Formats: sequence, C-alpha cells, structure tokens
Amino acid sequence: MRNVYLDWAATSIPDSKILEKVHEISIETFANASSVHNAGLKAKKLLEDSREICAAALGVKSKNIFFTSGGTESNNISIYSVIKKKAKGTVLSTNIEHPSVYEPLKQLEQMGFNIVKIDSEKNGIINPDKIEERLTENTLLVSIIHINNETGAIQPVTEIAKTIDTYAKKINRKIIFHCDGVQAAGKIPFDIESSNIDFYTISSHKISGPKGVGLLYCKEKIEPLYCGGGQESGIRPGTENVAAIYGFSLALQQAIENVEQNLVAAKKKCSLLMENLRGIKECCIIPESRISADVASNTFDSFSPYILNFYIRKMPEGKVQLKSENLRSQSSVRLEIPAEVLVRVMSERGFFISAGSACSSQKKQESQTLKSMKIEKNVAASSVRVSIGPQTTEQELLDFCNALEEESKKLGELL
Amino acid sequence: MRNVYLDWAATSIPDSKILEKVHEISIETFANASSVHNAGLKAKKLLEDSREICAAALGVKSKNIFFTSGGTESNNISIYSVIKKKAKGTVLSTNIEHPSVYEPLKQLEQMGFNIVKIDSEKNGIINPDKIEERLTENTLLVSIIHINNETGAIQPVTEIAKTIDTYAKKINRKIIFHCDGVQAAGKIPFDIESSNIDFYTISSHKISGPKGVGLLYCKEKIEPLYCGGGQESGIRPGTENVAAIYGFSLALQQAIENVEQNLVAAKKKCSLLMENLRGIKECCIIPESRISADVASNTFDSFSPYILNFYIRKMPEGKVQLKSENLRSQSSVRLEIPAEVLVRVMSERGFFISAGSACSSQKKQESQTLKSMKIEKNVAASSVRVSIGPQTTEQELLDFCNALEEESKKLGELL
Repeated sequence: MRNVYLDWAATSIPDSKILEKVHEISIETFANASSVHNAGLKAKKLLEDSREICAAALGVKSKNIFFTSGGTESNNISIYSVIKKKAKGTVLSTNIEHPSVYEPLKQLEQMGFNIVKIDSEKNGIINPDKIEERLTENTLLVSIIHINNETGAIQPVTEIAKTIDTYAKKINRKIIFHCDGVQAAGKIPFDIESSNIDFYTISSHKISGPKGVGLLYCKEKIEPLYCGGGQESGIRPGTENVAAIYGFSLALQQAIENVEQNLVAAKKKCSLLMENLRGIKECCIIPESRISADVASNTFDSFSPYILNFYIRKMPEGKVQLKSENLRSQSSVRLEIPAEVLVRVMSERGFFISAGSACSSQKKQESQTLKSMKIEKNVAASSVRVSIGPQTTEQELLDFCNALEEESKKLGELL
Repeated sequence: MRNVYLDWAATSIPDSKILEKVHEISIETFANASSVHNAGLKAKKLLEDSREICAAALGVKSKNIFFTSGGTESNNISIYSVIKKKAKGTVLSTNIEHPSVYEPLKQLEQMGFNIVKIDSEKNGIINPDKIEERLTENTLLVSIIHINNETGAIQPVTEIAKTIDTYAKKINRKIIFHCDGVQAAGKIPFDIESSNIDFYTISSHKISGPKGVGLLYCKEKIEPLYCGGGQESGIRPGTENVAAIYGFSLALQQAIENVEQNLVAAKKKCSLLMENLRGIKECCIIPESRISADVASNTFDSFSPYILNFYIRKMPEGKVQLKSENLRSQSSVRLEIPAEVLVRVMSERGFFISAGSACSSQKKQESQTLKSMKIEKNVAASSVRVSIGPQTTEQELLDFCNALEEESKKLGELL
C-alpha cells in the first residue's frame, strides 16, 4: 500500500536534493563558524551566504535576518522581547495563536504582564477593528498569527499593521508587531518589509527544508533572553548549524520562487478536495462559511488552500435523521466521529492526516482556535485537518475522499 | 596540503557514519513526532528509542533526559529555571563559566537576582571550600562548568555536589546544582546520577554527533521559560528534529562506550604534545602548574587531555633576553604573539587551532576564565587552545609542533 501524506502543515515532505546538500555540508564544512581559522571562516562564509539568500528571497536586508532553531524559538524570542521592559505593560494577541505564542503569553501573565487576547470572528478571522479597540498607551507588543495552522484562515496582518502604526504614531510610542508566519512563508506572496511588521517568524521544515532551523526577521534590535556566545548578534546564541541553515535558505528561496505557481496549483487541488468532501454528506467543512468564500470565488483570499479543516457527522444510513441539536439535547449520544478515531482509521488506510493541530495533538488539548470560533466542544474534538503541499496530487486527494466516505459510513454504523 | 584539525573543543570532526544515518532518517522518517498517524508514531518511536539509548549510555532514567537544540539552550534553560521563583534569591557560580552560563547570569542580575561568582584558583580549578563559604539560605541554584572549555581544568563537581547537598539538608531547602558538561560528556568517565547533580548539559556536536542538538539531564521537574506545543514534557518545545536526535544518541553511546580507551590515547597524545611544546623555548603552557600536575604524574586528574592552552613569547634569537617584567616596565613592547596572529598563521600552514574560547572568538572579548586565574591581560590575549579528538594522530601533533616552532621564530622576529 502506498501512503498518502496529507499532513504538510505539521511538517512537509523534505526536499531530498536539499537534504542531500545539507548532508554534504555537514561533513565537508563542519567547523565552528565562530572559529577564526580557515575552516571556521569557510563555515562563516556559508552562514552569511545563507543569510543573503534568505534576505534576497524575502526582499529584506540581510542584517534583519536571524537564524534560530525553528518557529517555536522565533515565536518565544519575540514574545519574551518585552520581558526586560521596566514597566510591565500590555501584550495584545488573539485566541487563535499557535501554542508557541499562547504558552509564553501565559508565562508573561504570571510575571505580571497584562495579556489581552481577542477572539476571531466565527469564520476564524480576526477583525482589525477589534485590535484597534484594544490598543492602549500601555501596549508593548501585538502578536498575530499570519495563517492559522488549524483552519488556514489568513489574517489581515497588513491591515492590522497599519492600524497599529497609526495608533503608535498618535501616542508617539513604538508598539512592536510580531507575526507568526510559519504557515504563510513560501505559501502565499507576502512582503514583510512594506507591511510594517517588526518581527516575523519562519520555519524551515514547513517548506521542505531541514528540521531544527528557522529564522526571525527583526526590523529593530531585540533584547533576547537566551544568551551565550553572541552568535546571530546575540539574538540566538549557540554554535550555528551551518549545514541546516544553508539547506533552509535553499528551501526558502525555492518556495518563494515558486510561490505563485504552487499557489495556483494548491487552489485547484483544494477546490477539488472541498468539492469531493461536500459530496460526502456526513462531511462538514470548518468554518462552514469557507465554502462560499473559497469555492464560489475560487480566490482563496481568506483561507490558505494548503489547509482544510472538517469533521464527520455520524449518520447511519436508513435511520431517521434528526436535527442534531434535538438529538443531542435528548441524550448524550456523540454525533460526530472523534478526530483521533478518524485519523487512526485513515492512517490504517495509508492516508496521513491530522487531528486538529498536529503540533500538540498527542496532548489532546482543546483547540483554542476552534473555541474562539465558537465551535461546539464535541465538534472541535472531531475536527481533522488535511494539509497539502506542492507534491500532493489530485489523484491522491480523490483517493482520500473515496476512502474517507467508505470509512465514515462504517464508523457511523459502528460507533 | 593536508589540513590538521586541532579545534575539537569548538566542534568535533563529525562521525560520517552517524551523519549518513541522520541523513537517511531525515528522508525516511520525516513526519512530525507529535502526529498521531502511523508516520508520526514511527518518528515518535525513534525519538523515544533515542532517549533510551542516551539514558542507558549515561546510566540514568530516560524520563530524566530532555532533548534540546544544544549546549547553549540546555545551559539557558537551567539558569532561567529560577526566573519564576517568587523570592529573587541568589545564584552561585564562577568566573570560569562558558558564555552560555555567564551571559544569562548577567540577565538575571538585571532582573534583580543576586549573582555571586567565585574565582578559580590560579590553576583554573574551583576550590569547593569557596563554594561552601558562599552558600546561604537564599541560594537557589549553583552552576559550575564540569571541564573548562579554555584550559581543560576539571572541576571537582562531585565534591561540590556533596558540599551543596550537606548544606541544603542543614537548612532543609532544595538547592539546584547545574553542571555544564559540554566538554566532559563522553570525554571522561562520569556518573551523573550518583553525583547529586540536578541538571547536566550535554552537546552533540562536541562528540562527533550532528549539530543543533543536545540534552539536558534533569533530576527534578523544571519550570521552563520557552514554551509551546509541549514537546519534551514542555521543557523544550518545537517540532523534534528526530533524525538529529537519533544521531546524537548514537554519538553519545559511542563516546561513552569508548571513553576509557579514548582517554588513555588522549593522555598519551597530550603528553607528547606538552613535551614537544616544552621543547619550544618560547612556548608557555597555561596554567604553568599543569606541567607538573600532568606530565609528572601522567594522570590528568585535574586537566582534560583533550584541551591544552598555551601562549608564545616573542624572543628573537641573538638578542639579549631580558626578564620580561623589566622589559615591559621599560616600554610598551608586546612580549607575546597575539592569539589571532598565531591562529591565522598556523591556519595558513594548515593547522586549525583556536584563539582562547572559539565559541565567541570572533567577538574578541577578554577571556573571563584566564582573568579569573589572574593571568595578565596581554598573556590572555595571546593564549591559544589546541583541542584534540579520538582521530587526532601523534604525527599530526608532532607536525604541528614543528610548524609552530618555525612560525614562532619568524613571528618573534617580525612583530
């Protein structure tokens, strides 16, 4: 049985040519990039070449690129950048952030910072007006995810950046704006520099690069918490993993070079997937409004075509279909197939999808994002995510839908 | 010209078989170890296998092993573990720590913690009595480097651990003891668990494993600062670099299996090196007392035979040799060959050594360690480090000494 990998948002299928290059460099250019002998200088050169490649791909200056161990570290560095501010002000964020943003926010709250988190609209998208309403003179930092990792909802970060900038100018104080771009970089065209974003997080392994590396774009100097030998201008100390960093730079370059072409293909694939999922009558897309937004217009302006979230209702054939709310109120019957069951069953069929957010899915925590969208707890616990990549084929998606329909029927009867 | 790599303490020559395995896994077992589908479970299995391998090699329980992005991160996690303590107590450390310990200590100081740092003796070794003297009821954490990365001085951490434990029992309070074991793990036999050490830092790339990975041994639950998806029990969040982690476990296993055999060989090589350096009359070992300690006894109980620090005096032949102190007082003549010059010149000859601590050598900071040993500033700025590994041959060391003697003479005349 051939496996079909549909969990690209958790981690992408790596580019084998890039990983081959990483392997070669890890053997040939192994020296410490901080060493001043020729082997060290060679490693340092490759490190700075990587920075140039990333900067050119992103259209930013190389001095604003800092390599990290990945998205989680970039997000943590950004959030904790406020920790040494004398006045413990406010950090404004949302309830649809990745754990690597919302967990540090919890810590800051315990340390006496005021954390304000706003809910998304029902469609999973943050309304910029709500950000504007909550900005105050004490706001130090705003952190918003660019593309939500569970629903694919694209947040209006450019508009939000403008709102923040206007307010900051009015009060004559700097407010830092951080975006977690892990699901966006190399997936949708985006100009960080013209968008007035101060910190932007990118991860390598989400775009077919090696694991254990990422970057933080920093427009302004940052006060890092973790420190050591001063590498990456002190922002991210520790012996640089030059081979992985170089591989990441190649992956980012490649993703951005092909971003439009891959996006067109992804829209086509996602439309096909949605169309076929809608053919399965037990299947419900999350958010429902995405169907009209995406399918009708085929624009995918509001949702990434790389991520699709849905759940499966249990509706045994031949039984009277009650309105779900009535049935639920009458009994404790679970009306949806639990996500973990569906993921396991599909995995046995060779299709690898994710239960909600894979990044912490083994923890079985409630999804913050779906809760923020006012999605019922049982439905949220049944939501699964299909996430695709440039290598995903239409045939794989059709095979997936066929298998899903078969398994859903069986599960509906069994459970 | 064949290059001779003598900068193992900065980073080791990687084991190509291990890196080959890492490469294979990075392609084959690429899934996110947090995903619950079969590909994710396979990655998770390899992650837990790696933990078992490290635990078995170290003779500790696997539940006490937490993988990190490397030594710097392990040290930072350990130091910042006190940050959320309500009472801002004292952290006791030394002036011979690696920047990844002393820089976070500076930050803690700015945050209101009381940081007490003791000097080493002139030989670069910490006297446990001085630790005992400075323990107080407010001491939260003690952090001591196991083997100093510049001089190779082995610190009496087992004795210090006993001192701390005795005091902690007396005051009926827990005092955490952290050791930075980056230059010690896999280099000298050591039993972490029986030594009453709470946190112990190990880095992969110092023992021929892949870069970007390390571990923290934690005897007790820790309160991490960086947080996210809950990976590594929350201690080190972020998608696990399973391939690198597995490679690291193999490297650690191999290093510990061969520790005695490699150590015997390293002692022989280091003795040969010291003997030949002593044959160069301009060459001075740091600390001088190491000569009697190591060469006479050939035990290397106090210094790692993998690291040797020295400097070269300028003494042109044919000129009257004045006592250096007299000459210095008469003029501003520099009596030692600057480390950077020596490193560059030897590099051109194909010998890769380090100027003091390579980890931050491009920053040209004054060495904290040599300052603590009361070594004069000019001498410290001239100190170079030769660090060897299992693959270093005696012939390479002889070639190095010959080249060094030639270059020292030339430099002595030129500068």
